[in-house]
Amino acid sequence: MRVAAYKKDSDVTYTLGATVTMEFLNMRPDLVEDVIVHPDFRSEDTLNKIKEICSANKIPLETAEKPFNILSKKGNCYVIAVIKKVKETIDDGNHVVLVNPSDAGNMGTIIRTCAGFGITNIAVVPPAVDMYDPKTIRASMGAKARVKMEIFDSFEDYEKRFPDNKPYPFMLDGSTLLQKTTIEKPFALVFGNEASGLPHEFSLKGQPVRIEHTTNIDSLNLPTAAGIAIYEATKDIFGV
Amino acid sequence: MRVAAYKKDSDVTYTLGATVTMEFLNMRPDLVEDVIVHPDFRSEDTLNKIKEICSANKIPLETAEKPFNILSKKGNCYVIAVIKKVKETIDDGNHVVLVNPSDAGNMGTIIRTCAGFGITNIAVVPPAVDMYDPKTIRASMGAKARVKMEIFDSFEDYEKRFPDNKPYPFMLDGSTLLQKTTIEKPFALVFGNEASGLPHEFSLKGQPVRIEHTTNIDSLNLPTAAGIAIYEATKDIFGV
Repeated sequence: MRVAAYKKDSDVTYTLGATVTMEFLNMRPDLVEDVIVHPDFRSEDTLNKIKEICSANKIPLETAEKPFNILSKKGNCYVIAVIKKVKETIDDGNHVVLVNPSDAGNMGTIIRTCAGFGITNIAVVPPAVDMYDPKTIRASMGAKARVKMEIFDSFEDYEKRFPDNKPYPFMLDGSTLLQKTTIEKPFALVFGNEASGLPHEFSLKGQPVRIEHTTNIDSLNLPTAAGIAIYEATKDIFGV
Repeated sequence: MRVAAYKKDSDVTYTLGATVTMEFLNMRPDLVEDVIVHPDFRSEDTLNKIKEICSANKIPLETAEKPFNILSKKGNCYVIAVIKKVKETIDDGNHVVLVNPSDAGNMGTIIRTCAGFGITNIAVVPPAVDMYDPKTIRASMGAKARVKMEIFDSFEDYEKRFPDNKPYPFMLDGSTLLQKTTIEKPFALVFGNEASGLPHEFSLKGQPVRIEHTTNIDSLNLPTAAGIAIYEATKDIFGV
């Protein structure tokens, strides 16, 4: 298997690391084209599981060192899978909507939080960081295999497809406090760009919400804000 | 001003970027030894503010390119300050306690969240990532200038100094759900290592709490979990 440095327009992406790879092997073996194990990989248990799933799904499995030099500069990576990129369509249900997210690590962390709180559909409004970037997938800890993501040309396009999802745009000047807002389901929790937040016109969409904090910071870190919002919006599900 | 690549045992650290530097100039000018501006820096307003504060506090200010090549490989950094490292002592009040934190970015994000929700004292139990690492300071967006941090040899040492702070260790098998726990003040929200969490014996400290999530993830990202806990513990302060 020849691998090449990841590019946004390539038709495959890569899982870097055993945990992330196992998530795809377990959840989406149909997307796994190839698994490459480093000659120094020493976890027998994990290796046996990988062999079993690859064999059951006719996925080529090989041992090689070179792909790790090309794809993983950090070094603490001993398993890589080549993952087919497919266009996904999100389903009905509770949603998170990311408008202009710009950081792969942040996007991955939000995917992980969504999976943790049972949100399996994320809408993305571009310009946006690449949801298939290996950094995104790695930061998700492989949760990307469990969460569908779809790009919409605009928030209006999203609203047309999902008119029943009540939008809650999170804004620094949102008119209601998160802890005093009843979040109705199905919801769409909407978050803006890391540096600039949501454009002002989102204050006219649904119920704008703010997470109150001191003036000692300009804003919360995006995945932290999203985590707080997702926790609050789903606590009745997990609080029983 | 000669600068050198940051090391844990050096007696200065660095702020990388204008926002982070401004936080230290505004909050802790006493710690700023030197400010270096890149010749390509073009933000007149910020530069004037920097000049004003440096002049008022007799802080040397210079224009140079070389320190940026040594300290900032990412490139999008145009202001650096040299910051004196001082040993801090935390005060009474609500605390976050980080036991064995291992990632500088995560520690910085938690510092930012603490500053956001009015927690200005963090206890750290080693082994721990360096709180003065420029990566920590950058991830805090400069909030490190507003939050005191103190290293304790052990959690028991922390408890001896702050017997009135009720510990709430956050554990995957914590016996009460966060949303059903009354968090009494002054509190100590205690978080473990990114990969391994808190050692089992913490289940005997105060009231162990869990943030319930699906089995689709092994755990939440540490700064996300800390953000949710800090939000919940302080929402009565910010919800009025």
